[in-house]
Amino acid sequence: MIKTIAFDADDTLWHNERIFLSTKEKYKKLLSKYHDKNWIEERLDKTEMRNIKHFGYGVKGFTLSMIETAIELTEGRVKGEEINEIIAYSKEMLSSPIEVLEGVEETIKEVSENYHIMVITKGDLFDQEAKLARSGLGDYFDDFEVVSEKNKLVYKKILSKYEIEPNSFLMIGNSLKSDILPVVDNGAHAIHIPYETEWFHEMVTDEEAKKREFISLRKMNLVIDWLENL
Amino acid sequence: MIKTIAFDADDTLWHNERIFLSTKEKYKKLLSKYHDKNWIEERLDKTEMRNIKHFGYGVKGFTLSMIETAIELTEGRVKGEEINEIIAYSKEMLSSPIEVLEGVEETIKEVSENYHIMVITKGDLFDQEAKLARSGLGDYFDDFEVVSEKNKLVYKKILSKYEIEPNSFLMIGNSLKSDILPVVDNGAHAIHIPYETEWFHEMVTDEEAKKREFISLRKMNLVIDWLENL
Repeated sequence: MIKTIAFDADDTLWHNERIFLSTKEKYKKLLSKYHDKNWIEERLDKTEMRNIKHFGYGVKGFTLSMIETAIELTEGRVKGEEINEIIAYSKEMLSSPIEVLEGVEETIKEVSENYHIMVITKGDLFDQEAKLARSGLGDYFDDFEVVSEKNKLVYKKILSKYEIEPNSFLMIGNSLKSDILPVVDNGAHAIHIPYETEWFHEMVTDEEAKKREFISLRKMNLVIDWLENL
Repeated sequence: MIKTIAFDADDTLWHNERIFLSTKEKYKKLLSKYHDKNWIEERLDKTEMRNIKHFGYGVKGFTLSMIETAIELTEGRVKGEEINEIIAYSKEMLSSPIEVLEGVEETIKEVSENYHIMVITKGDLFDQEAKLARSGLGDYFDDFEVVSEKNKLVYKKILSKYEIEPNSFLMIGNSLKSDILPVVDNGAHAIHIPYETEWFHEMVTDEEAKKREFISLRKMNLVIDWLENL
């Protein structure tokens, strides 16, 4: 029945949120002489939310938001060298080693033998392509789609482009909002594998989740069992 | 013979380089109290080249390069409000109205009736999607591909993904390096329509160009005649 399996990338195939969280820690430390760390974080989150419509998702937009917040918070007193430090964070993030999540490589390898497998990920194209290359997983996948938003229409377009029947499509990802609900709403299948932390943009209410039918698994390597038991 | 026509976007369908050039002018003016304008431009171009490997192409990477250069040039003396101004340029660029080039809409409209037509563009996914939407041309196209680099292999993959015979594929664009040479090297057809200015990253030597066979037209509306005379 299932012919195509699509995987989300960040925090499904490899650690990502971790890199943002550790950069945020460095950022708060850098600016801690100006303000309280909690206040810095609150303001940064607000800038980020406000800037999504300009910059979309990804490291570069996040970096511009960090710079903007630093100027705002210090009423322009932030030093050139401190902003330079923030730009250096972005280059570190963009080139940091990719830590593939536990059980992912074995699972991908096994399913790649019997299914058409692809990555469907949101974010910055350049950044995501570089991460796939650095992850060493690139060769397992038949297709790689980077989209700017993951909603019902975007999935519908992908299904139509690859001539995939919704009923034969399975999406696996850590975000209910991006990987699960819009897929189920297209009549396709979805497996939710929660990550250790959840990004505030990606949260959905219990009610929204309860309206849909999907599978939730604790770890990637349980996917194989699930497929075998179909 | 030709079944699919693909168009480059920036400076082929709409003005783009212009927006970068006018931002550069504002940037040089902003920093002119610190340095000579030519020197500022030279340094910015160098930072941009150096940062392509980190940031790829697009407004956000360009903005980070402007900020980095401003700090470097002023040895950190650049003011917070000046950096804020640079961030404001980026938001302006990202939301500036799209000026479709002369003859483009009529041509696209006409060819869309008889050919499978698509956009193949390099750059930032979020940015390019937003521009296509703002251009009002989106509905004419059957497919839209944003790639991080345009080389022989990337075109080969696209042709294979859409099951297009190279001989039935025509690419139209303003850049010899990105739109013409790698397409011709795949055995497909290409029409070069030069833009009013050429970006320094995109220049190729006469020799490289002379080795390939392609058509060069002065304006987009000449494409229709060319197709009719095939």
